[in-house]
Amino acid sequence: MGKAQSRYKGTGMSEEISDLVTMATMLVETTPIALARGAPSLDIIDVDGLKAAAQAALTIDPERTLGYGSAAGYEPLREWIATCHGVKPEQVIVTNGSMQADAFLFAALVGRGDTVVVESPSYDRTLKALSDQGAHLRALPLEPDGLDTQALAAVLESGVTPALAHIIPNFQNPAGYTLSQAKRTQLLDQARTYGFTIFEDDPYIELRFSGERLPTLLSQSQNDEVVYASSFSKTVAPGVRVGYLVGSTDIIEQITQLATAAYISPNMVAQSMVYQFIESGAYDRSIDKVNAALSARVDVLASSLQEKIPEIAFTKPLGGYFMWVTFPDDVDTDKLATKCSDLGLAVVQGSNFMLDKARNSLRLAFSAVGEDHIVEGVERLGRALNDL
Amino acid sequence: MGKAQSRYKGTGMSEEISDLVTMATMLVETTPIALARGAPSLDIIDVDGLKAAAQAALTIDPERTLGYGSAAGYEPLREWIATCHGVKPEQVIVTNGSMQADAFLFAALVGRGDTVVVESPSYDRTLKALSDQGAHLRALPLEPDGLDTQALAAVLESGVTPALAHIIPNFQNPAGYTLSQAKRTQLLDQARTYGFTIFEDDPYIELRFSGERLPTLLSQSQNDEVVYASSFSKTVAPGVRVGYLVGSTDIIEQITQLATAAYISPNMVAQSMVYQFIESGAYDRSIDKVNAALSARVDVLASSLQEKIPEIAFTKPLGGYFMWVTFPDDVDTDKLATKCSDLGLAVVQGSNFMLDKARNSLRLAFSAVGEDHIVEGVERLGRALNDL
Repeated sequence: MGKAQSRYKGTGMSEEISDLVTMATMLVETTPIALARGAPSLDIIDVDGLKAAAQAALTIDPERTLGYGSAAGYEPLREWIATCHGVKPEQVIVTNGSMQADAFLFAALVGRGDTVVVESPSYDRTLKALSDQGAHLRALPLEPDGLDTQALAAVLESGVTPALAHIIPNFQNPAGYTLSQAKRTQLLDQARTYGFTIFEDDPYIELRFSGERLPTLLSQSQNDEVVYASSFSKTVAPGVRVGYLVGSTDIIEQITQLATAAYISPNMVAQSMVYQFIESGAYDRSIDKVNAALSARVDVLASSLQEKIPEIAFTKPLGGYFMWVTFPDDVDTDKLATKCSDLGLAVVQGSNFMLDKARNSLRLAFSAVGEDHIVEGVERLGRALNDL
Repeated sequence: MGKAQSRYKGTGMSEEISDLVTMATMLVETTPIALARGAPSLDIIDVDGLKAAAQAALTIDPERTLGYGSAAGYEPLREWIATCHGVKPEQVIVTNGSMQADAFLFAALVGRGDTVVVESPSYDRTLKALSDQGAHLRALPLEPDGLDTQALAAVLESGVTPALAHIIPNFQNPAGYTLSQAKRTQLLDQARTYGFTIFEDDPYIELRFSGERLPTLLSQSQNDEVVYASSFSKTVAPGVRVGYLVGSTDIIEQITQLATAAYISPNMVAQSMVYQFIESGAYDRSIDKVNAALSARVDVLASSLQEKIPEIAFTKPLGGYFMWVTFPDDVDTDKLATKCSDLGLAVVQGSNFMLDKARNSLRLAFSAVGEDHIVEGVERLGRALNDL
């Protein structure tokens, strides 16, 4: 037996193999792991389906795909969205991502000094957009079954009438919680009684791994008390930047005028691609694939956390991208996030999402990483906690 | 000889053929002809090149094409633009069309009540965007060699310092005029001396049919006195909605923050497609094709106008999409545009582009129609004028 072969014999590793294992371990340990950003990993995006969609868009409808078109968006996609929600196409505007839709909505409905009810915690970009618009934010607690509607009742009874209540009803960002049907009914009653608009911000609705989908607030509304937003960032890809709003014909007309002034028309190439992606059936397959992957990831995340960091508390989400984890009161997650960063783990401290800066929670995103990275990420989180 | 054959003999047409000719003539006469909108006809868009670009984008760089990326835009396109203009990538932001770039620039630089110098006539959407921003517009005459810089000197000497001067230097919309080098030098001197920013709005620069390109104001500036905007709407396709700004690192950083808040990131799919379209060589071929077509169209437009409506005055543009035509003083082009519309011809009355509502000019766009439609369009314009 030659020297080369002998290396692979017996239980002991040769020096070279041992070095390789050490190097591989170091490599794993220093690979940055992102449990921070709410973005999908490339493996759950249907790149081939999008290639086919691009060809279809440019072959079947080159004129509308490449022309200016209307600020309301690519008409066939607008009609498809209208059909999904059981409304008229005139009640839909398709925008360059749903943040842009939010910005138009806030410009149309929220004046400087107006009160806007928001969930606490809530999506940091939306809180910033509302603040930039001059809104007075009234943050009410978010519970595992959604906004604290009793707290809202108290605010309304005190004589404060908000211009808007911003609600992320499904698999909320950052908490992962879902608004119960009982609270949906209460919230709609409150909006009708007190005359405010509910902004139903619903980008995660298609990402349910278990349980039954609850009807949208929009579908349960009676008098235009809801404006609804969603997005194809999570079901097709973020880079297509296609989102939309559904509302009354009046508000959509008003927002279409704002959109015309801002950019003449939105991205027709991307909207036409999304439409062909849907038409081909790739959209439904993509949602199934995304949900299977996210479901497996959240299982690994939950079991790893329970095993490695038993003092952590969380409600395992039934869908979406995010899990909200809470540490004992004395843990400062601003400091913890910095420790994590030193260990090559990106997380987002809870204070980013809270107006009152509570300090013992983190948002963990399981959308951007595979299961092995989740296990390693939880290891690092545990180490960071011990180092604190 | 049978009856069928006899129909094709001799000089007289049979009744059936005569009917067909009448029908065809009616069809031509009632086909809507648009000399109104500044948009390219589909035949001068390289659809196949864009199909190949979409495949390349999704094959070569799926991760950045489909991800969120940065609000500054798709990095390789940003770098390509920076190289074109001899600046650093940090001086470029790629946006969802150049109107969106304008809106960010105005939000950053123009406060309510600030004076902004504009050309008269000028692009109606820009005038509206500036007015919406609360700017006080100071319209100065546009001459065949560009802005009346003597008039600007008088304004500056009177003690008015504008925040911005908006200039469309090449093949201006709506006039088709180009700013001379002598006036470029004067304008830069004025900006330096009086401390205002020149907004060089240059979407038509690549569409030159004859003569030599003049250096951009940006390339001749010394101390960040110019912010430059352009677009791929005219050289690739409007539906890609890709425009950009070039300026100082500071202003681009400030605008990137506005863009982040507005839409997180612009359309990466479209920007990656545009980049691959450029890389493949299709971009240069597309510009050649567009210019050959536009040059032929403007020749037909000019000769048809000279032949059919000799009382009309115009300066034949050396590039771009638009020709500005002026009628005798007593012709009201608001009324003329309505007459044209009755005859199935869309034109835009000059008053849309003027703050002082001069009434005897029209903008004719030769971008969206073939040569035969231009001939027929001029026929209708002549008829409308006679009917007035």
